[in-house]
Order: sequence, then C-alpha cells, then structure tokens
Amino acid sequence: MTLATEVPKGYVAAATSAGIKKSGKLDLALIVSEVVAASAGVFTRNLVAAAPVLLTAPRVRAGRCQAILVNSGNANACTGPQGLEDARDSGRLVAQALGVAEELVAVSSTGVIGVPLPMSVMTNHVPLLAAGLRSDGFDQVAAAMMTTDAFPKVASRTVAIDGVSCRVLGVAKGAGMIHPDMATMLCFVLTDAALDQQLLEALLRDAVNRSFNRITVDRDTSTNDMVLILANGAAGAPPVTTGSAAAKEFAEALDSLLLELAKMIARDGEGATKLVRVDVEGAVDDEDALKVARSIATSQLVKTALFGEDANWGRIIAAAGYAGAKLEQSRVSIRFNEVDMVANGLGLGAEQEKLATAVMKQPEFTVTLSLGLGRGSAYYYTSDLGYEYVRINADYRS
Amino acid sequence: MTLATEVPKGYVAAATSAGIKKSGKLDLALIVSEVVAASAGVFTRNLVAAAPVLLTAPRVRAGRCQAILVNSGNANACTGPQGLEDARDSGRLVAQALGVAEELVAVSSTGVIGVPLPMSVMTNHVPLLAAGLRSDGFDQVAAAMMTTDAFPKVASRTVAIDGVSCRVLGVAKGAGMIHPDMATMLCFVLTDAALDQQLLEALLRDAVNRSFNRITVDRDTSTNDMVLILANGAAGAPPVTTGSAAAKEFAEALDSLLLELAKMIARDGEGATKLVRVDVEGAVDDEDALKVARSIATSQLVKTALFGEDANWGRIIAAAGYAGAKLEQSRVSIRFNEVDMVANGLGLGAEQEKLATAVMKQPEFTVTLSLGLGRGSAYYYTSDLGYEYVRINADYRS
Repeated sequence: MTLATEVPKGYVAAATSAGIKKSGKLDLALIVSEVVAASAGVFTRNLVAAAPVLLTAPRVRAGRCQAILVNSGNANACTGPQGLEDARDSGRLVAQALGVAEELVAVSSTGVIGVPLPMSVMTNHVPLLAAGLRSDGFDQVAAAMMTTDAFPKVASRTVAIDGVSCRVLGVAKGAGMIHPDMATMLCFVLTDAALDQQLLEALLRDAVNRSFNRITVDRDTSTNDMVLILANGAAGAPPVTTGSAAAKEFAEALDSLLLELAKMIARDGEGATKLVRVDVEGAVDDEDALKVARSIATSQLVKTALFGEDANWGRIIAAAGYAGAKLEQSRVSIRFNEVDMVANGLGLGAEQEKLATAVMKQPEFTVTLSLGLGRGSAYYYTSDLGYEYVRINADYRS
Repeated sequence: MTLATEVPKGYVAAATSAGIKKSGKLDLALIVSEVVAASAGVFTRNLVAAAPVLLTAPRVRAGRCQAILVNSGNANACTGPQGLEDARDSGRLVAQALGVAEELVAVSSTGVIGVPLPMSVMTNHVPLLAAGLRSDGFDQVAAAMMTTDAFPKVASRTVAIDGVSCRVLGVAKGAGMIHPDMATMLCFVLTDAALDQQLLEALLRDAVNRSFNRITVDRDTSTNDMVLILANGAAGAPPVTTGSAAAKEFAEALDSLLLELAKMIARDGEGATKLVRVDVEGAVDDEDALKVARSIATSQLVKTALFGEDANWGRIIAAAGYAGAKLEQSRVSIRFNEVDMVANGLGLGAEQEKLATAVMKQPEFTVTLSLGLGRGSAYYYTSDLGYEYVRINADYRS
C-alpha cells in the first residue's frame, strides 16, 4: 500500500505479533498522537458491552485522547470485573510507556468472547510497541486489527481548510456483514485538522449513519463495536467551526472516507463474492425508503439468491412487502443496474431476466426498487450469502 | 402413515400430480367438508399478498367454508389482476364440480413467485380431484403441499366434548425456517367439533401466536402464508361455547397440534440438522423474554454455531444483549439442557464447555438463558444454519 504518504501529521503507530492469535499473525497495535487530540466516538448499543467499550467510551466522550491500543484475537467481552481491570491495566501500561495521563488512552479489542485477556502479553509487548512507533506503521495497524477479514482496510482523504492541506486517515476491521453481532467492527479515524469535540462528535455521528449503519442492522451491534476519531490540529490549519464552509468540506471528506471503509467491510462480508448496492426510490419518505432498503439487504433469501446468481425478483418484492413501509404492489418496479425486471408489480419476462442474470455475474452491481409513491430514497450495501459464510462461522473458534 | 384413522368426520380429500411442479410430484389437492363448516383464518401481513390470499381471506373471514383447493409449485404471487382472476376461476371450478357456492371455496398456493398459474391444469384436474375424494386422502394432501419440505407434515388430536369424541386434524407445509419470506407456510386444520366463527377465530389466533409465530419472525411473513381452520360439527357434539370447559379443552388440543406442526417445520428448516428450543426465563416480563428468545433464535451467528456444534455462548449472550430487552450482564446464566455454561455473566470453563458440546451433538436440545430480573418467560424454536440451506436457496428456481 502507498497510503502511508497520506498519514496525517503528528500521528505514529506500531503493530506486533504478540501471541494473542494462535496463528502468530499481527494482533496488537498502538496508535499515538504526538499531542493531545480532540476526540469523539460511536460505540455499540449492545447491553452486553465489552470491557474496552465500558472503559473507553467515557474517556473518549470527555473529548481528549492521545493513544489507542487495539488487539485482535480476544474481545475481552463477558469477562466480568476482571475484564474491566485488564482493560484498565492495559491502558495504564500505555500511559506509563508514553508518559501521558491514563485518561488519554483508549483501548479496543476484537475476537473471541468470554476468554480473559492475556495480561502478560500486554506487559511484555506494550513497552516494545511504544518504543517502535513510526509514521508509516498504519498498514500494519490495519493488519493487526483483522479477525475473519480477508484484507486490511485503510483509506484516506485530504481536505483544504483555509488553504491548508489537512489529511483524514481511517483504519477499520470488519467482515461479518449482515449480522455483525460479535466483536466485528472497529474503525479509527485520525486527522491533523483542528476541530473541537462537539463538532467532531456531530460529524462522526452523521458519517457513521450514512456508512457503517448502511451495512449493518441496528439490532446487530456487537459487544465491541467502536468508531473513534482523533483530531490533533497538527496540520496548522485554523480550527474548523460549526456551520462553516470548512466544516462542510470536512464532513464531506469524512462521509466519503467512512463510506469507502464501510463498502470494504461489506465486500469482505465473510465469504462474500459480490458487493450489491440496494437503492430504493419513490418511497413516501426517506425513513420508509430506508426500511425497505434494509429489509431487502438483510433478507437471507435475497442474499442466497445473489450468491446463486438467480434474478429471483419475487424474493426482493416479498422482502419489500414486509419491511413495514407503505407500498402498493402495482406501483413497484425493479431494475438490476439498467435492466428493467419488474414494472407495475409484474415481471417483464424471460428476456429481461436473462439480461439481469448477466448483471448478477458482475462482482458489483445495483438493485433499484422504485415504489412510485413519493420522493423518499435510501441506499444500503449488502453482500451475498454463500457456503463460505457458513464454513467461517461454524468453525470460528476451532 | 396411520393418521388416516384420526381424520375428523365429514371431511374428504384428494391429491394429484397435475404437472405444476416440473418434477412430476404431487402438486394439487382438494379438501372438502361434506357440510358447510364454520371457518377462520390467519393470513400473511406482507403487503405483497398473493392472489389466493386476497381472494380467500375475506371468504374465510365471512365465517363459512366448504372446500380448500391448494397447489404447490406456483405461488400465484405478483401476478397482478390476471392472478386474481386465475385464483377466482380456480375456485369457481371447484364450486362447479362440487355444486356449492363459489364463496365457500378457499384457494391457496405455494411455490415460485411471479409466474402465471397454469389454468389449463386447473380446468383438467379439478373435476378429477372432485370425483376422487375419499376420507383417507390427507397424507397425499400433505405431500401435494410440499415445496422444499423434506417430509410431509400431518398431526391430529382428539378432544372429548360433553362426552363426544371430536377430532382435530392439521396438515401443514413449510421448511424455510428463519426467513420464511416467500410462499413458505401453509396449514389447514379440520375439526368435526362444532364451534362458531368468532370462537374459532380467537382460538386460532392464540394457537398461531404460540406455535407458528414462535418459529418465525413477524416481519418475515411470506406473500402466501395462510392458516385456515374449518369446524363442521359432524361429530355430533354440542357446540363449544366461549368460556366453557370444552372451549378450554379444545384450545389446548389446538395449541398442542399447531405446536407439533410448527416444530415439524422448524425441524425441516431447509437443510437443518438440529431442532433447538430457546427458553428464556427471569425476564422483566413475558414480552421482554420473547424479544430475547427471538433474537437468539434468529441470529445467524448463533445458528451457524449450532451447525458447527460449537458451544459458543458468547454469540448467545451477544444476541441477548441487542434484543432490546432489559438485561444486566452480571445476572445472566446460560445452560444447554442441564449443563451450566454461564453464571453471573461469566463462562464456567472448559470442562462445562466439553459437556455442552456433547449436548449439541444431539438432534434436539434446549438452550436456556436466565436473566435473573423477574418472572417473564418465553420460548422459541430454531434450527441450525448449514451448507444445505445455502444450496437449497441459491438454486431454488433452477
């Protein structure tokens, strides 16, 4: 990857194979801002929140952060008071190694639930990580965050703020697509732009709603889900203020960055062979459109049909019909990319189906459903459900 | 099957291979009550309701029915005004052959969506079916209703009403378990007890809530789902009246009959190798318990772990955590049959896990989650998700 050139100023990182994963792959990483950064975060709403979420959420929400410690291979979830103590101790090791206040350290974990975090690993490796920090370490960080991911996920953007070029870098992990209900989604965003905590929080929340929340169902938040953003101002641009043109530009960059990472997660959807965008238009309002898009994108029967390259529009319209949105069957039309499949609720015949089947053989395409009722629209990304998903998840711990 | 002896008095049936299914298997059946029966029904809430649902729902709800025509291989869904006309014409053929009023005929279809019903088949075969009606034809009816079902589903009960023995027979189809969002679930219940339409409707609704609604998620109703009950009074028992001891006994028989059929559907869950009961107890109330049970039973990660015989309780507790119910992690306990796996939110170690894994090798077992908060309880039936599910649904139409 050549993305290292896009790393925002004032951030360094390191990763190592600490032995938490049996495979011996990279599994522990440290990200550090050279100065204290403004911070914001979005966390799992699962009531069974993992220890690192419980520890990190209040710290990050307090608005200041300087370091993020992340491990894969162990979620430190369902580990009770000991798990919380282990998360706190891990953070303290980082604070000591860097000489910063404990409250400025975020910790994050992903992996198997219910197994204590191996603390000797932390004691041994955190000081080594702190000693090995460098500005081109982020590709390795992304690798160290992977669990069932098939590839690391890094992306970046640049934004000019009052003529000063600022960078936004995101590293993410996630491959469980439809039901990431355990330890599946982490994302860390670093920028050298200057933003206060309140604005950062607002922009992050919006961007997450338009990206990661369009590939997952709310109810399927994992025990460990976490999206953090740090802004350290190291680029030297003036602070971005709420409502300014700079805020709008920064928001656009953040939106597109998180959507790119979200699409990477969807494309990596365990065993997925296709990335499919579901577009819904003509709904009564955007909320209704989102219900329909989500219903189609998460339907197991739709997803297996995508895997089978079967242009089975009956499953799509059925999923729309139970979405809880206003719908009149006789006004529905469906197309696969530019190929019309259904008009006025009726199939358009074998010829069109043949053309749609050809569209489905592509690794990426769009299914558009028009409801013909209003101006509401929404999108959702999904992947197909194949044998590999079953294999990966049936055998995950073995 | 020896169930023919349990057929309620005054009902006859016939089935045939009409050629709607390419395979040449049984695909068209007719059930007739010798006298007009009281009727009630529960129908899909999918806004994309199939033509037979649109035709049959108002007829059955009017409270009187004498015949049910059912076909498999074609759902007559998303077929527009022509589909509705075809459903009506099919019913008319039955009415003519039997010499009964058209409004007394229910029609029902299951199979592929979006393909016109082959009406020449109906014209040719309905009169033959009507000529071949017999009292032991119900096993064949069950076979003619099958699509991806691995086995036919028939069960019966007897109830003594004021000393008179009455019978209740149910025939069902369904194999898509978690997401029966197309043409997946039909059930016809016949009794020779006498009940008026209002009581029949109330008892049916309750029984469906405790059976078929415990194996499916509401939002996943298909375009064709339909449960009908006919009561023709042919046993000669006095009418069952609301609030009576007889009503209670009849309700119990109906509940247990539908639960038996629902469990058959879950066990048949496309490619399923296990039938798992999820019991939730100690919730704040029954509603919360049901949310948790449903969340666990429908989690794709839980279901793949069941297939992999992996006692991955982390996925179970995570699914409970996002159910939207009150939950305190430190009070949760989990057991597999009698084997304790989790207490106070913490795993009980490798020995218990080994015992739980042994439980999972059985074809049928119970996972119990105690929330430790109150007296609310609920159950749900689920099956595992394996390769066969993917194979069946990726290739369904080919």
